[in-house]
This record gives sequence, structure tokens and C-alpha cells, in this order.
Amino acid sequence: MGPHPAVAAIRLAVRRVLHDVITDDTTGTEPLVLVACSGGADSMALASALAFEARKLPVRAGGITVDHGLQDGSDTRAAEVAGRMTALGLTPAEAVAVTVGREGGPEAAARDARYTALDAAAARHGATAILLGHTRDDQAETVLLGLARGSGIRSLSGMAAVSGTSGRYRRPFLQLDRQTVRKACIAQELAVWDDPHNSDPAYTRSRLRHEGLPALEKALGKGVVEALARTAQLSRDDADALDTWAADAETAVRDEAGTLECAKLFGLPPAVRRRVLRRAVIAEGAPAGSLFARHIEEVDRLITGWRGQGAINLPGRVEARRQGGRLVIRQG
Amino acid sequence: MGPHPAVAAIRLAVRRVLHDVITDDTTGTEPLVLVACSGGADSMALASALAFEARKLPVRAGGITVDHGLQDGSDTRAAEVAGRMTALGLTPAEAVAVTVGREGGPEAAARDARYTALDAAAARHGATAILLGHTRDDQAETVLLGLARGSGIRSLSGMAAVSGTSGRYRRPFLQLDRQTVRKACIAQELAVWDDPHNSDPAYTRSRLRHEGLPALEKALGKGVVEALARTAQLSRDDADALDTWAADAETAVRDEAGTLECAKLFGLPPAVRRRVLRRAVIAEGAPAGSLFARHIEEVDRLITGWRGQGAINLPGRVEARRQGGRLVIRQG
Repeated sequence: MGPHPAVAAIRLAVRRVLHDVITDDTTGTEPLVLVACSGGADSMALASALAFEARKLPVRAGGITVDHGLQDGSDTRAAEVAGRMTALGLTPAEAVAVTVGREGGPEAAARDARYTALDAAAARHGATAILLGHTRDDQAETVLLGLARGSGIRSLSGMAAVSGTSGRYRRPFLQLDRQTVRKACIAQELAVWDDPHNSDPAYTRSRLRHEGLPALEKALGKGVVEALARTAQLSRDDADALDTWAADAETAVRDEAGTLECAKLFGLPPAVRRRVLRRAVIAEGAPAGSLFARHIEEVDRLITGWRGQGAINLPGRVEARRQGGRLVIRQG
Repeated sequence: MGPHPAVAAIRLAVRRVLHDVITDDTTGTEPLVLVACSGGADSMALASALAFEARKLPVRAGGITVDHGLQDGSDTRAAEVAGRMTALGLTPAEAVAVTVGREGGPEAAARDARYTALDAAAARHGATAILLGHTRDDQAETVLLGLARGSGIRSLSGMAAVSGTSGRYRRPFLQLDRQTVRKACIAQELAVWDDPHNSDPAYTRSRLRHEGLPALEKALGKGVVEALARTAQLSRDDADALDTWAADAETAVRDEAGTLECAKLFGLPPAVRRRVLRRAVIAEGAPAGSLFARHIEEVDRLITGWRGQGAINLPGRVEARRQGGRLVIRQG
């Protein structure tokens, strides 16, 4: 008798990613693959599948759990998770403590601290890849969070299956639904930990998971999560293509001195022109995170709605002005 | 004392569109602008603003109300709405009865019948433009409905401010929120009719309006409607740009005989390649409405995942097969 269908599904997903890691590896030795494991159901399932599949393939498997230090006893819990990873056969199986800052709100600060620690662990152990347990449901939530920003298709593209420096981070479960992953835990009798943050309504993602998405499913039908995940993939490809176009176009619309020519900018499709303007403004020193659609729209009006308006002030003391058929962007 | 701010807002929105209509008009006579009016708050507000602004501009203003014949007494109601439009000073002010079919579900069938009747009325009266009362909230709902299809950014682009044959349909309220428009009705003491369909949970849009969107706002914050409307505009521009690219690319990837070359297709960004394939399949007779992302992905694998697979069967008896470095698409 084979494994439970949910267990087979998570193992297949991990096997595919391990094959990619092996194919992409250039070190010539057995690559080390780490799982980032919180002890929750998704990442425990991932840890179990990694341990199982790695035995049959030329890879070494280990795991890291990050102690964010945000709750009493989080160190004990982290040690416990490390113990569970050891029991699965993962080596190293390590708990790493981090200090969470405040920048960008509690969720972003915890994420930043976590990835910094994971990157450091990968470097320390010479790991080729780090597997993350995000499921299709997490992806759907991420798309909705991006939608709420209203800043265009890049923010709808969710999480990538492969990301980070030289594709270090991989998300084998991005096409699997959370329910399958949870079933795989139950079928394997894995002890898992429910992070109380995941159901705390103080967190946007938690409100989305427990109220927003279910209401949307009730209104639009059960396929919403899948549709959102598909939207992520399509948006990512579209955003990549448009970025490529904008990079090419930016060269073509500059004169010999490197200054942007208004007439040539005017000839571009609006979606490409706005991306070119964004690139140009960032290149002059505007911080990408502070640059909103309304800033770029105002600069765009120097091209499409010219009526002699003055210089536009942008974040990072960058200034855009139209001067004799040229668009001059400069840091003041 | 000037008008109530909400009344000023709806008038300004209509005035801008009338200026565009006058600028775009090539007939040399005073163009006729019709409002499509259900008698509900949004379109009654639109009718009132049109009647007010048209007096000051070189345009004639009329109105059409469509009797869908779906409820008892709908004919009486339509006559009443026509009477209200006459009272506002609109000429013609006409009620048109239609027969709603069944194709595509009740909402789509009613919409098809309505637009057919509006087109016919425009032709009969020689109207240059038809104004529609869709608000930013309607736009947000349309984006979510598109999101539920998961078929990419074109379906996220909502309703256009200008659409239809030679830009006949215009939506002056697309940037205004529903609350402002409703306030303008109250401030002007306009009698309006609440269509029971709008609160009937049997309709997807109604569920979205009364349950889905409020839950999403509760989870993500009050700016969701605005963010969705902005996403619509950005997605529309992006989809337009990518369609332009695909149209250009399609010519470039065909050999002298007009057959698609696999190597050249392979060199395109995935987002552009999939659009080229979609265009090519539709050009051979596949009905656009039956062609889903998964069909195009399967054809795409003939290019990106070639392992000798056979012909792909597509809707409309269209078949795609790889033959000696060429992609042959043909109706059987």
C-alpha cells in the first residue's frame, strides 16, 4: 500500500524541487538543502517530505527554525522544533534566535529578521537551497494584500516559486492547497504547533485568512483561491515582460547626452512610459519604496499634459522638470 | 450659495465628459448625448447632471430607460422613469422594452439585451454618446469578478471610461464613489428606485457588494475600493501594451509562408509568447470565449517543453502541432 494521497502529493512537490536543485547545482558535491521550519503544519509537512525524499537522492537535508523571541517560551519551543527536525533525520537541525526590529510594522519586521537569519544559516552551512512552506492559500492571501495596495500588477504577482540570491529560496507547496498539506501532517501523525499569531485579528493576514477570503469565497465561489494563485503567476510573467520592454525603451528614448526626450517618451504605450519614468527617477536616487503611482503620474503629465507646469518634487529630493523638449530628472 | 459638494462633483464629472464629446465630435451639428437610466440612484444622478450641464454647452441631452420585462409592472416603472427624465428636461426621454434571453446566465443576458437596445436607440436618434452611471464601487466589484476568473490582467481591467463602437459609451462616474453619487440624489431630492436585484443574494454581484467587499474592507482597510479601481486602470494599460507587443511579435515569428517558427517563439518572454499563441489560435477559428489559459499553456509546452507530444486539440476544432521546428495551427 502506498502512502496517503496527501503525503504522496507533498513528497512529489518536494521531489520536483530537489530535482531542480540537483540540476542547477554547480558545486559538484552533494548539495545541502535546508527547510525553514516554524513547527507549524505547513513547514512540518515540508520538513517530513524533504527528509523522506532526500534519502533517495544525491542531496543532504537539514532544517533551521527561527526563534523570533516575541512570545514567552519561544526559545523552548524553537529547541523543541529543532528536536522534531532531528527526529525526522535532518542534519543540521538548528534553532536560531533573532531580534525583531520595528521597521515596516510587526509582520514585515519579523519577516526581515527571519530571512536575514536564514541567509546567514545558509552561508554558515554552505546550503544551496532553502525550502519554504508557503501554500497556494498563502499565495492567494499575498495577492489580495497586493491588491489592497493598488500599485499595479507587480504587487499582484505574489511570491515566486524561486526567489532570492541565485534562486536560493524555493517554495515547493505553492501549487498545493493548505488542506492537502494539513492532511499530510495528520496522515503522518506529525506533531505541529499552531502559531497564535495566525489567528490573531490584530494581523492583516490573519483577518484576511479567517474573514476576508472566506467571505470572498462565499460571494464568488470555491475557485477563488486557485484563481488568485493563477493571477499571481500570470501577473508575474506580464510584469517581467513589461520590465524588459521598459529597460530596452529607456535606452532608446535618451539622446546622446543621456537625457530623456519628451517626443520619444510620448510615443511609448502609457504602461511602458510610466515604467521608464519610474526607472529614471529611481536611478537618480529616489527610494523605490517611497515612490507611488501618483508621483509617476505627475511626472507623466509633463509628457502627456504639458501646459508649462513647474518642477515636480519627488521622494529622495529628486526633481523632474521639462526643459526644451527634454525631461530633466535630478537630485537637488 | 453654490450647489451641494456632491452635486458639484457629479456635475464636474459630466462636464468633463461632455467637453470630450464636443471635442471628439466631427458631425458639425450639436451632438446628442443620451443617458442610460434605470431609475436607480446612480443613473438618476447622472441624468440630472447631464440635463444641468447640457443647457450650458453646445450639446443636446436625452435619455433611454430599458424595460427588461423581468418583473411584474416593469413597463409601468419604465414609463415612470421616462417621465422623470422628461421632467429633468431630457429630450428624447424614452422607454424601450427588450426580451432577455438566457445565454451566459441572467446577468449577462440582461446586459446583452440592454446594450443592444441602447445601441439601437443611439442609431435611431443619431446620438453621439451614451452615458452610463457606473461608479468606482461598480468598478471595484467588476475587478473582483475578473479576479475570480483568474484569467489574467485583461480581466482585472474592469470597465473602460470610454468603450464601444467609436467610443460611444462613456462612464463619467468611474472615479466617483457611490456614496457621493447617492448624496447628490438626496441633495437634489431626486426620486430614485431601488432595484431589488441589487440586493438579491442570488446574484454574484449583489453578494459581492453586500458581503464580499465589506468583509474585504474590514480585513484590508477602507482603501480597498480605490485600490481595486486603480488596479483596473493600471491593468488595462498593461494589457494594452502587451497586446501591442504581441501583435508586433506575431509578424516577426512567422516564416515567409506565414507559419510560426518555434525557435523564434521560444525567444519571446512567456507573457508575450502566450499572447501570440492565443492570437494565432483565435485567428484559425477557435472561439475566444472558450479558450482558457490551460489550453494556451498546453500549446506553449510544444515550444518550451517539447518531448515529442502529439497534436493539441483546442476549442472550435482547432488543432496545434509541432512539425519540424514549426508550430502548425489549423482548423480540422
